[in-house]
Amino acid sequence: MKTITTGKVKTVYDAGEGKAIIEFRDDITAGDGAKKEAKEGKGSINAEISARLLRFLEEKGVKTHLKEFVRPNKFLVTKVEIIPVEVILRNIATGSLVRRFPFEEGSELNPPIVEFGYKNDDYHDPMLNNDIALALGLCTRDDLTVMRRLALKVNDLLKEFFFERGILLVDFKLEFGKTHEGEIILADEISPDTCRFWDSETREVMDKDRFRKDMGSVIEFYSEVRRRVLS
Amino acid sequence: MKTITTGKVKTVYDAGEGKAIIEFRDDITAGDGAKKEAKEGKGSINAEISARLLRFLEEKGVKTHLKEFVRPNKFLVTKVEIIPVEVILRNIATGSLVRRFPFEEGSELNPPIVEFGYKNDDYHDPMLNNDIALALGLCTRDDLTVMRRLALKVNDLLKEFFFERGILLVDFKLEFGKTHEGEIILADEISPDTCRFWDSETREVMDKDRFRKDMGSVIEFYSEVRRRVLS
Repeated sequence: MKTITTGKVKTVYDAGEGKAIIEFRDDITAGDGAKKEAKEGKGSINAEISARLLRFLEEKGVKTHLKEFVRPNKFLVTKVEIIPVEVILRNIATGSLVRRFPFEEGSELNPPIVEFGYKNDDYHDPMLNNDIALALGLCTRDDLTVMRRLALKVNDLLKEFFFERGILLVDFKLEFGKTHEGEIILADEISPDTCRFWDSETREVMDKDRFRKDMGSVIEFYSEVRRRVLS
Repeated sequence: MKTITTGKVKTVYDAGEGKAIIEFRDDITAGDGAKKEAKEGKGSINAEISARLLRFLEEKGVKTHLKEFVRPNKFLVTKVEIIPVEVILRNIATGSLVRRFPFEEGSELNPPIVEFGYKNDDYHDPMLNNDIALALGLCTRDDLTVMRRLALKVNDLLKEFFFERGILLVDFKLEFGKTHEGEIILADEISPDTCRFWDSETREVMDKDRFRKDMGSVIEFYSEVRRRVLS
C-alpha cells in the first residue's frame, strides 16, 4: 500500500476506494517531536482505546472516520482531508493554559474552554482566532462553527463516559476531516496521547504528561486507561 | 491631584466629578518595558496626534473619553474603568503576526484581522479567544462583540484619514473603558506608540518600530506623523 503520510506516531496508507489504513506505532513524542522514544505496546493500546471511544461516539450520533478496527494496531478509515485546525477542549486548567494565562492549576473550567490551534510544527501549533484561521485559508467560518459544536458534544459524551470509569477528562485535542462529500467528521484518535486523564479520586496523571514530565510508568498507566475504557 | 495609575508612558490623575487627567510623558518603552528611554517632546507629540484623531472619531460618531486637550501634553477625560482587553486590528501582516503564523511580511489582510489581547505584562499580553476572556472574567460576551464592532468602525475611518495623508495604517491597538453608566467608549491614545504607520509611497516606518528596532530618528518621524495628521 502507498504511504500517504508518516506522522510522529502514526502512519497512514492509501487503501483505495476512498479508504485509508492508519497504523498506530509504538513511538511517543513530546515538544513538537524534540523528545522521542518507542514504548512497546503503546500503538496497540492507543488503537484499542481510540476504537472503543470512536465507536461509543458513533453510537451517540457523532460521525467518525473509523470503519473497522484491525487488531492489534490498525484502523480502516474513511479517507478524509484533514482540516489543519486542532480543536482543544479544556475542562480543567493545566498545561499551556496555565503557562499562558493566570488560571489556577487544576481549577475547573465551567463552561469549558474551546481553543483552535494551527497544526503546524514549524510554528509550534499556535493558538488561532477565527479571523486568523480564515486569513490563513485553513477552513471556512462554517467549518469553525461546526467543529466547535461537535467538540462540545464530544466533551459532554466523553466526560460522562470517563466519570463512570473513575477518570476526570481534563482536556483533549480533536482533529476533523472533510469527506469526499464535504461533510466534517471526527478523525484521528482519542487516547492518552491526545487527552489528559486524571484519576477522579487521587488526581494521579494517566496520560502522556507521564512521558512529557518523566514521571515514569507510561505503559502501566496507558494500560490502566485501556482497562477502564473497555470495562 | 491624586495619582490613579502610573503607566509605562502615561500618568493618570483623579480630577474629581467623574473625570481624570492623563499626562503623556516623554518615556518610550518596548518589550514589556524591558527597553526604556525618554525622548524629549514625545509626550506632547503623541498627545496632539491622539487629540486630533479622537476628535475626528467623535465627529464620525465614535464616543471617546476625551473631553479637553490641555496643551501641551494632557487630556481631561471621562473617567472610565478600563477593560483589560487590548483590541488589535491588522490591515497588513507584520510584527508578532508574522512571527506566530506563516503570513508573508507586508502582505495585505483584507478583511482585516481583529485580535483580543490580555493586558497583562507578567504574561506578556497573550492573545485571547472569547472563551478564555470570559473564563478569566475580563468582560462579558457582549463587551467583546461591541469592542470588535467599534474597532472595525475605527479602522474604516482611520484608514481613509491616513490614506489621504500618504500614510498606510498597518495595524493598531485600542483600549476601551466602561463609563459610570456602563457604556463602552474608546479610551487611551491613538499615536505612533500604539499604531504602525508606513509611508504610502516609500513604505518607510513612521512609528515605534523605529525605537523597537533601533532604526533612529524616532522624534523626527513622530513629528512628521503629527504634521500630516494636523494637515
